[in-house]
Amino acid sequence: MVTSSVVNTYPLSSYSFGTKEPKMEKDTSVADRLARMKLNYMKEGMRTSVEAILLHNHPHILLLQIGNTFCKLPGGRLKPGENGIRFHLTINDHYTPFPPSDTPFCLAEIEGLKRKLSSKLAANSPNMQPNWQIGECVAVWWRPNFETIMYPYCPPHISKPKECKKLYVVHLSEREYFAVPKNLKLLAVPLFELYDNVQRYGPVISTIPQQLSRFQFNMIPA
Amino acid sequence: MVTSSVVNTYPLSSYSFGTKEPKMEKDTSVADRLARMKLNYMKEGMRTSVEAILLHNHPHILLLQIGNTFCKLPGGRLKPGENGIRFHLTINDHYTPFPPSDTPFCLAEIEGLKRKLSSKLAANSPNMQPNWQIGECVAVWWRPNFETIMYPYCPPHISKPKECKKLYVVHLSEREYFAVPKNLKLLAVPLFELYDNVQRYGPVISTIPQQLSRFQFNMIPA
Repeated sequence: MVTSSVVNTYPLSSYSFGTKEPKMEKDTSVADRLARMKLNYMKEGMRTSVEAILLHNHPHILLLQIGNTFCKLPGGRLKPGENGIRFHLTINDHYTPFPPSDTPFCLAEIEGLKRKLSSKLAANSPNMQPNWQIGECVAVWWRPNFETIMYPYCPPHISKPKECKKLYVVHLSEREYFAVPKNLKLLAVPLFELYDNVQRYGPVISTIPQQLSRFQFNMIPA
Repeated sequence: MVTSSVVNTYPLSSYSFGTKEPKMEKDTSVADRLARMKLNYMKEGMRTSVEAILLHNHPHILLLQIGNTFCKLPGGRLKPGENGIRFHLTINDHYTPFPPSDTPFCLAEIEGLKRKLSSKLAANSPNMQPNWQIGECVAVWWRPNFETIMYPYCPPHISKPKECKKLYVVHLSEREYFAVPKNLKLLAVPLFELYDNVQRYGPVISTIPQQLSRFQFNMIPA
């Protein structure tokens, strides 16, 4: 893990892009997705997902576009046991997240994000994996119910959140090869396009500019 | 400075509150304020301001209310020389903020925030000053022009921003005495009241929940 508030960003010309087999969404509707989430919750408890903020010069954020409008960050759901959050029952009977002091757990979360990034953006060959340098966690979002709405805190009186989603800054190296699934489009979106644009990007992605504002971007020229 | 992502928060009953002489706003209108800002810019260059996020249990954020509706974080403008940001001309002729590597400068910024906090919230007696433990910078906002609008990045093509405002988490001790200026009201506002409430709190304060979401709150009971 890289815990620096200085992020080197490289021009897009640093990177090369190819395609690979499609990564289909598991669900064809929001209703299907929430139903599957509910089923998984009953089997495995709270869903933990991790997503990456990949930056290149200016800075721009890399997003994956599905269909004509929906955009998401690369990442996804961790396997049970890969998540770094454990719960700790406080005396007022609320669950509060407990710091992931247990290193193997925390490492598992970072490894889980690398696995997800490779699945979404790396070539299939094991010796062509980008050097994913996972940086700081910049935001945590909570899903209190089996609904689309999420909050940047676990709302009061919610003792059993259904999902915890963590966003990490990922530091890219100077040269990388990305293989983009054929059904997805990789977009590079500038911060000023995301800012205050909740209609287009939703509440999680549209507030990334605020979460990155404390970082120093060291833009490396081409 | 405290650089931990674990924040202890204490109940409101930990703190006692009194009043002190009013701290009047220097300007009576937004137009006056922007005109004064312009005048100061010509004399002293970019305005740097620092503001504090003070938390107590649940967590709630402490805000100062002026009149019936306007709320602000405690803090304010640094004196010339107190600011930690210096500018560094990059090769593509854009000014980009340079990390405050020069320790005395950075310390000056932290000391400036403590000075502002004492002016707004401490008793006048020097031996009754709260133990202001300044934590991490969580957001940086830029004012590109002599206008009210600010952005969480310095917009492209703005080489001479007019203000840089930094928000810091401030860790409070278990017991403190606050003296609130008579013309201001101290409010404790829960995160869920701030979230998505740009109409009431403006863009800077309403996205504090997102900026705090990565912190672990260790709520100490009464």
